[in-house]
Amino acid sequence: MLILHNYFRSSTSTRLRAALNVKGLDYRYVSYSLLDDEHRAPNFLEKNPAGLVPALELEDGSVLSQSLPIIEYLDEMHPEPPLLPSGPKCRARVRGLACMIACEVHPLNNLRVLRHLECLGQDEAGKSAWFRHWVAATFEALERVLAESPKTGIFCHGDVPGLADICLFAQVWNNRRFRIDHSPYPTIERIFQAVDAIDAFRKAAPPEQPDAV
Amino acid sequence: MLILHNYFRSSTSTRLRAALNVKGLDYRYVSYSLLDDEHRAPNFLEKNPAGLVPALELEDGSVLSQSLPIIEYLDEMHPEPPLLPSGPKCRARVRGLACMIACEVHPLNNLRVLRHLECLGQDEAGKSAWFRHWVAATFEALERVLAESPKTGIFCHGDVPGLADICLFAQVWNNRRFRIDHSPYPTIERIFQAVDAIDAFRKAAPPEQPDAV
Repeated sequence: MLILHNYFRSSTSTRLRAALNVKGLDYRYVSYSLLDDEHRAPNFLEKNPAGLVPALELEDGSVLSQSLPIIEYLDEMHPEPPLLPSGPKCRARVRGLACMIACEVHPLNNLRVLRHLECLGQDEAGKSAWFRHWVAATFEALERVLAESPKTGIFCHGDVPGLADICLFAQVWNNRRFRIDHSPYPTIERIFQAVDAIDAFRKAAPPEQPDAV
Repeated sequence: MLILHNYFRSSTSTRLRAALNVKGLDYRYVSYSLLDDEHRAPNFLEKNPAGLVPALELEDGSVLSQSLPIIEYLDEMHPEPPLLPSGPKCRARVRGLACMIACEVHPLNNLRVLRHLECLGQDEAGKSAWFRHWVAATFEALERVLAESPKTGIFCHGDVPGLADICLFAQVWNNRRFRIDHSPYPTIERIFQAVDAIDAFRKAAPPEQPDAV
């Protein structure tokens, strides 16, 4: 059986749980409290020298790291239902939307960065302002890109949920912790509601996990 | 002809230039000075509502955004020479190495973030310390991952340069501006030297571009 090394609140873990659920793949859930630095412990570093969750341990014992590459792997190994559309330009669009979140928002707003801001003298209000600043910087553009494109459907790309929806879903759950007002992003909010209504996604949400507090 | 909207010093632009050169694709070079916010001008936002470089304008006028998805597109459309290995697990490894840089180092260290740190009272020394902190956080892990794996060859994965080498190459050029000491990262430095010796890569380096200052 697949082993998912992850943490309920980690947004990249949420992405991977959603992908596994959409593909109907069973997995063993192993939790690492990022607050307690459990992902820096030697027994995990031995499995995953990068020392980050999520990581997916395959049946042959090999361990894959980084959520988007793991999701691409799952999509290659288990093509149905697809997480990327057919057609190279459409795939580039979906991967591009995913990267707007994965390369522009999340890397700036994860726990290790918020913690490091404390070293720069930022208190809770300062960390919250930082989080909101980077969400707004990309969500304004993402809203525009989604709202303006005829390729946007019920979901980020047409009417089948895919890689971009997975990233949007996980980020919006993250935003909720910081009480981000989504009223300037009606398209993003509409897509989130559509995705969140799907059982495979909802079961991947942070509060549904066994280590949720 | 392809039109590359980019900036000489942008690390994500360097990635895309390297990929275009490796594929032997000709392109028109259009420069946007990020220092002067030229990428926020209406004529560019019309083409690319995300307002980020690099963007690749195709012959049909459509515009692709985000360096890694564009590189995946180029690899799908022009399979030779390949930028990803065959075999899903190997592809996941290469994409994972690329994401260590693209999702962990670069998003924290690009111009817009360094500028925003000024709002938090950081001076040049503070911004430099921030840059170095995030390079070290991931480069220590990346060095370990590369050094420990038998899959690492002359390049990040075997003896053919690919997607991970493209990201490594661009990041190391970025590091040079901040005079990062690479002696703790002998494997990364060795791979960089091997990549930098290849004409297609070297021609993608920031100082070789027409807008270099």
